[in-house]
Amino acid sequence: MKLKIAVLAGDGIGPEVTAQAIKTLEAIAEVYDHEFEFESAPVGAVAIDETGNPLPEETLDLCEASDAVLFGAIGDPKYDNDPSAKVRPEQGLLRLRKGLGLFTNIRPIKAYETLIDKSPLKREIIEGTDFTIYRELTGGIYFGEKQLSKDGKEASDLCSYSEKEIERIAHLAFKAARNRKKKLTLVDKANVLETSRLWRKVVTAIGKSYKDVSLDFLFVDNAAMQIILNPSQFDVILTENMFGDIISDEGSVIGGSIGLLASASVGDKSALFEPIHGSYPQAKGKDIANPIASILSAAMLLEHFGLHDEADLIDQAVERALEIGMVTQDLDKDSTYGTRKVGEFIADYI
Amino acid sequence: MKLKIAVLAGDGIGPEVTAQAIKTLEAIAEVYDHEFEFESAPVGAVAIDETGNPLPEETLDLCEASDAVLFGAIGDPKYDNDPSAKVRPEQGLLRLRKGLGLFTNIRPIKAYETLIDKSPLKREIIEGTDFTIYRELTGGIYFGEKQLSKDGKEASDLCSYSEKEIERIAHLAFKAARNRKKKLTLVDKANVLETSRLWRKVVTAIGKSYKDVSLDFLFVDNAAMQIILNPSQFDVILTENMFGDIISDEGSVIGGSIGLLASASVGDKSALFEPIHGSYPQAKGKDIANPIASILSAAMLLEHFGLHDEADLIDQAVERALEIGMVTQDLDKDSTYGTRKVGEFIADYI
Ligand SMILES: CC(C)[C@H](C(=O)O)[C@@H](O)C(=O)O
Ligand SMILES: CC(C)[C@H](C(=O)O)[C@@H](O)C(=O)O
Repeated sequence: MKLKIAVLAGDGIGPEVTAQAIKTLEAIAEVYDHEFEFESAPVGAVAIDETGNPLPEETLDLCEASDAVLFGAIGDPKYDNDPSAKVRPEQGLLRLRKGLGLFTNIRPIKAYETLIDKSPLKREIIEGTDFTIYRELTGGIYFGEKQLSKDGKEASDLCSYSEKEIERIAHLAFKAARNRKKKLTLVDKANVLETSRLWRKVVTAIGKSYKDVSLDFLFVDNAAMQIILNPSQFDVILTENMFGDIISDEGSVIGGSIGLLASASVGDKSALFEPIHGSYPQAKGKDIANPIASILSAAMLLEHFGLHDEADLIDQAVERALEIGMVTQDLDKDSTYGTRKVGEFIADYI
Repeated sequence: MKLKIAVLAGDGIGPEVTAQAIKTLEAIAEVYDHEFEFESAPVGAVAIDETGNPLPEETLDLCEASDAVLFGAIGDPKYDNDPSAKVRPEQGLLRLRKGLGLFTNIRPIKAYETLIDKSPLKREIIEGTDFTIYRELTGGIYFGEKQLSKDGKEASDLCSYSEKEIERIAHLAFKAARNRKKKLTLVDKANVLETSRLWRKVVTAIGKSYKDVSLDFLFVDNAAMQIILNPSQFDVILTENMFGDIISDEGSVIGGSIGLLASASVGDKSALFEPIHGSYPQAKGKDIANPIASILSAAMLLEHFGLHDEADLIDQAVERALEIGMVTQDLDKDSTYGTRKVGEFIADYI
């Protein structure tokens, strides 16, 4: 297969971990005789520093002209504590999602047996946990009108959703559930929000065409409890943008390491793959960042194009690295292996 | 002291647990020679069934004419799965908060040594946890304009905040931090929301008058992780309405039992005290509900009126009940004690 992959390594540890994902994809290309072409472009704080724009037009153009985007991380503390800053790195990511129409963010959450004791949660709570969050990514309060009154004393954000926006992601979520444990949980706040009531109505209606999937509802406050009280009850969780942001970061704690979690953001035409950890600026350039989440994002990329064996091989290589302790310090504080070393091991294994 | 207390027992297990809180307050009144007058009024599903209105006018009038409100619980499953229902029990609670101007919800979160092993989190994670959440309760997306388009295909909810709404709760939160570990954490989503940026600006400005309190910021998605990764880092958390709803329910899991957690909702003129557990309809009338959260809400009520010794005595009685295993089945599945028995023990101890 021939794939053109846009590489948006971004800020902080983004470039170092993405380099390992590329190394992995190159190994896969060699073994399976694929042709992967990589082209890089700036995004985030790096792009602001270079061009004044967190998502330069050429970057968006490159993504549109590519089959997929491999994304690193975004964010730099120098922009964080200035809420009045007109340009912020995160805008690059938000515009990219919107520009590419990436309306669904998919985050698998799994308890790895080898890491189960690293979780803040007890073993008996998390054993058997294996669910996926489908988070709506281009609507809701993230993209609704924002207002600040002239005198700066009143601010507002509008959360809005249309039937269509809900339908398209709901179909993806139901299909995913159909291929898994056949259970879909809609997380909302229908006892308070009008948008949530629309979600409930639309998702219930769509559920009628997926009779083999059982559908239930959970208020978001209750979901925030259930995810740590009894995470193995979930199969596919479907939710709107802001709730998904919170719930999926909460869920990322279960497995014991955020350094292992990958995500896919998909739309009708484009797809973007990124580790869920952020730019972790303190670790930048130190060769200590865990590259596995980025490598597993590459596996999700392959899976997305139907390259199941290739994706499986990466998963195997990762499991092997975990088993023999070929990991960075976040997983084993006595480890002497760095970002590059772990990436090399995985590429060599392949 | 003479206090007139409105009793809004509400739905599900509300009435049974509130009865134990009243018993406790009566014991306190006897020992300390106070005069507490109780008067009941309907709210929630019970009120809808009786009057068609989840917050009848007489109920609101009674609350306004009282020194404090003792609240039970609200919500009935028969209203939950009908998102289009025009009248819902929760509206009673929301209107009550708004009507009484209860702009701050205060929720202490503590790991009780005797219950620490009941937590889904590991002992070493939660040991030493003792923080309080200050949640804004009468603004934000809960009360902003809600719209549903004529064709029912578009819905929206407006989140808005004014400087004033933020200031009044921020002062309460800073004062609380000053009397505790002198650390305030503002939880927001300032990298995305205009309202969050206003929160950051206003809270930062107010922080200048509380130089002894250190102020830091956490994005809500990160906060959802930190609360389970390292809960003992927190002292006072300040946040807006919806984030507070999610974060405080998440935090309620830490201690190992939601049956112990009380809350206060305060405004300039009124104050309401309620257990944070919901109406738990499955347990209604079975004498199995844990009355301690309601009893501790009564202690918060006394504390609110400066009756520290009285509140301390209730805390002691509760600790004693926990120590000797005079608890309901949620805390000890082999226990044969019911709601009433635990309430009687605590009242007798006093
Ligand atoms: C960086 C930020 C804008 C982003 C979001 O809130 O969507 C991040 O938290 C995420 O979840 O990808
Ligand atoms: C019942 C519901 C409207 C309420 C809320 O969301 O505020 C509840 O969850 C709470 O936290 O008190």
